Amino acid sequence: MITGKNYIGNKLSSSGNKTFTTFNPESNTENYWKLYEASDAEVDEAMRLAHDAFKVYKTMPGRRKGDFLNHIALEIEALGDKLIKVYCEETGLPEGRAKGERARTVGQLRMFANLVEEGSWVQATIDTALPDRAPMAKPDLRKMMLPLGPVVVFGASNFPLAYSTAGGDTASALASGCPVVVKSHPMHAGTGELVASAIIRAAEKTGMPNGVFSNLNSSGIEVGKKLVEHPLSKAIGFTGSIKGGRALYDMAANREEPIPVFAEMGSVNPVVFLPRALKEKGKTLAKTYAGSITLGAGQFCTNPGLLFAIDSVELDSFIEELATEIVKVKPFCMLNPQIKKYYQANKSKVQSETGVQIKASLDDSPDNYANQALAIVSGSTFIVNKSLQNEVFGPFSMIVKCSSIKELESAITVLEGQLTGTIVSENNEIFYYKEVVAALQNRVGRLIFNGVPTGVEVCSAMQHGGPYPASTDSRFGAVGSQAIYRWVRPVSFQNWPNELLPLELQDDNPLEINRTLNGDLIQNNSKR
Amino acid sequence: MITGKNYIGNKLSSSGNKTFTTFNPESNTENYWKLYEASDAEVDEAMRLAHDAFKVYKTMPGRRKGDFLNHIALEIEALGDKLIKVYCEETGLPEGRAKGERARTVGQLRMFANLVEEGSWVQATIDTALPDRAPMAKPDLRKMMLPLGPVVVFGASNFPLAYSTAGGDTASALASGCPVVVKSHPMHAGTGELVASAIIRAAEKTGMPNGVFSNLNSSGIEVGKKLVEHPLSKAIGFTGSIKGGRALYDMAANREEPIPVFAEMGSVNPVVFLPRALKEKGKTLAKTYAGSITLGAGQFCTNPGLLFAIDSVELDSFIEELATEIVKVKPFCMLNPQIKKYYQANKSKVQSETGVQIKASLDDSPDNYANQALAIVSGSTFIVNKSLQNEVFGPFSMIVKCSSIKELESAITVLEGQLTGTIVSENNEIFYYKEVVAALQNRVGRLIFNGVPTGVEVCSAMQHGGPYPASTDSRFGAVGSQAIYRWVRPVSFQNWPNELLPLELQDDNPLEINRTLNGDLIQNNSKR
Repeated sequence: MITGKNYIGNKLSSSGNKTFTTFNPESNTENYWKLYEASDAEVDEAMRLAHDAFKVYKTMPGRRKGDFLNHIALEIEALGDKLIKVYCEETGLPEGRAKGERARTVGQLRMFANLVEEGSWVQATIDTALPDRAPMAKPDLRKMMLPLGPVVVFGASNFPLAYSTAGGDTASALASGCPVVVKSHPMHAGTGELVASAIIRAAEKTGMPNGVFSNLNSSGIEVGKKLVEHPLSKAIGFTGSIKGGRALYDMAANREEPIPVFAEMGSVNPVVFLPRALKEKGKTLAKTYAGSITLGAGQFCTNPGLLFAIDSVELDSFIEELATEIVKVKPFCMLNPQIKKYYQANKSKVQSETGVQIKASLDDSPDNYANQALAIVSGSTFIVNKSLQNEVFGPFSMIVKCSSIKELESAITVLEGQLTGTIVSENNEIFYYKEVVAALQNRVGRLIFNGVPTGVEVCSAMQHGGPYPASTDSRFGAVGSQAIYRWVRPVSFQNWPNELLPLELQDDNPLEINRTLNGDLIQNNSKR
Repeated sequence: MITGKNYIGNKLSSSGNKTFTTFNPESNTENYWKLYEASDAEVDEAMRLAHDAFKVYKTMPGRRKGDFLNHIALEIEALGDKLIKVYCEETGLPEGRAKGERARTVGQLRMFANLVEEGSWVQATIDTALPDRAPMAKPDLRKMMLPLGPVVVFGASNFPLAYSTAGGDTASALASGCPVVVKSHPMHAGTGELVASAIIRAAEKTGMPNGVFSNLNSSGIEVGKKLVEHPLSKAIGFTGSIKGGRALYDMAANREEPIPVFAEMGSVNPVVFLPRALKEKGKTLAKTYAGSITLGAGQFCTNPGLLFAIDSVELDSFIEELATEIVKVKPFCMLNPQIKKYYQANKSKVQSETGVQIKASLDDSPDNYANQALAIVSGSTFIVNKSLQNEVFGPFSMIVKCSSIKELESAITVLEGQLTGTIVSENNEIFYYKEVVAALQNRVGRLIFNGVPTGVEVCSAMQHGGPYPASTDSRFGAVGSQAIYRWVRPVSFQNWPNELLPLELQDDNPLEINRTLNGDLIQNNSKR
């Protein structure tokens, strides 16, 4: 059952009097459950509990945190079909997607459980003393990563499970030793409550301190603003629009004590089609890319929104094929009427720009269903009009037709920061386009060869983040085990008594982790 | 010879018409050389050259960058006594300090040269493909750190060599593959020009691209503001006051494309003296701390500015001893009349606060010489008056006399973020103060046992940075090899052709670096 209440630590709470509902875009009706908007007092209590919980939680050994994360995964699985049903009712996404996302979510939780149970992630670094060094003795210094404090996580509209309540931001922050306060996404706050209940059950079963997790409902911006400005919050995780992410970044930067914000925001994921690839496999590419552009109604941060190529007969054929394939795809339901409205508005805005030609457009899909579309613009027009880089969140892509390699390179050079950049090449063709590749590398967090940008593997070599505005800090990423480093800081212990050091830094390495000792990596072979 | 001109890349330039001079605080006279304030056109040209140089410099192999850094060290050494003379004339610091700082500076350059020549610092991480995985093939993903782009470095008033022109910020940024534009500190711009000339000679001798380094003079804030707001600058390094660092942070956060700022700012480096330590070794401690407080006229970011202890007869004796020892120290010349003026003003401000008692004060030192002083305040007064935490940059410290352990713990809890926190204990006494230690750990970047905070070892286990306002981003540090990570971001390559991958990520590991392969650390044993 969905109570609609907030979790303030382990307690269900609804002290405010404002309510809101979620919407089923598939049936085009409001869902019957009511959500209670968190009150100022609830926001403050959640932060205070998180602050108190931090004192205990930050000292928990990796196996305790791992136990907690594994139990969250189990409790999410135990929600069974009820979770899948509410997920679908709040998003219009198909059951297969819901189940796939649930699998990814519990997979992420277990990945972080393994990471902290093993323990080497803290980057323990030891430089032992040289008491006889002249002119001054060298002290014993030992350093490791320690958690920052309470983290505020904003749920993402397009990933109700994998990037919301118990998603990658929450899992990585809890793994690092930081309590989490979630601002649930209003479009799927029922799903959020179910997941939150799983986290709370796991916290209780594994003996975590009250306040290690809270979940707040809100349909507006006030609760989020209060959380970011609250003096007890120490870092922010966000996935969403540039406008939303930038607003949070500005709030955090304007605090008396600024705090780090990792916002994963807009990206149009440029793809460069090289000439021979278009010639040799244009037809296949058109099918593949029609699929990638329309996947999940284009509601992915890695959706390919800009397709670059040099003008040619082969490009014209490719465009024809792609246009045909794109309108052939059965339209998908979008997440929310609001999202469809924005999609239509953003699409119209691009269409109205000088030099933009609509090549294909589906204009008669049902309520809340996406009308996929393809546009074309010249390289020279693209280079001078920055607004053509704005993300159109939905199944839309624009071909940028360049008159020469030089123009293509210039078009890539003026790109804003992106999550991904893709080169589609026929075998070794890419070797002749090194400048284009270098320009693209400079603008992205992930380079892809002969693939599609959609589909984000969760592993340690993944980088999901990129130069602004893809994310607010390109030095970190939101996907994979490295995401934990957003929430920690190094702390050194100088000449510290061995018994008072964290276990990770003690002489006899009781946790058997990999460490760096006087510049040498000391690997614990027994674990390999 | 000091020309007073700016280095815009390899070229000496003085297109502006404003000049300024530096000051010899020891002789209390202006130095005779004139410095040319950088013009808007020079700022812009330096940034453009850096941007162009980046395209070439970022692809240079580690051994080329290492060669450049090693040559900078050699060229600095080749400046010989001339550098030491100008350093002393611009700072009033003694020759021994100048030579020590030069040794540290070239040591840092060589440390970063070794780091990039060895190459494992890029954190190469490889997750190989699983083409048969169901339901979806896993792609091959390879990730490493790549440089951000041109970095702007602001010289520090108190470290003309080790944290200015070729100091830790510049050395780490150049090592990472980022060109550097230095805004020279106006108090020692002559020293800055000499060091800049050494960097330029090294760049020319080792074939570095023009623009890999520039050095700009300025006595005001305009040049710095232009550099931070310039669209081609990608990160900022700064060492100095909270006011200065925060101003740069705010400028960078307000850009259309925000960029990271690492500002190492104020810290009062709290020291907790436990009761038995005071009883057993109070006299020795008083001597040691009188030395630490007055070292270099207290002009260190690690100067111990707040000394906490529980009220007792032993504390009173310690205070008497410390007061006696502090005024006994022969006063030091401060860096600049301006710095002495601020010191006197800040000291007076603290003295005028309710409840602050001046215990010892030297009031008759010569022009520009520091008047060391010791103050006392009660724990209860300290807890409620945040202004008592303001750094008094100079040889000043305040004893916070707490009525109980509880009050001591509260006083530590309300502390702002600090670079260091020290516990002075008699053997195992510290075991009875775990709450105090936990509270202190939460506020600092480095914990010190039975030592003084002054003296910062340059090694990989050092953390020099801390919660705000000690630094603007506690997740990074300014000293030691880890400082390189401020200037890089991870980039992933998906299914990328082996021959086009950076050498660090290629199959056969041609650079023989340590890498993480499918979760396992693969160590290159031949190098150990």
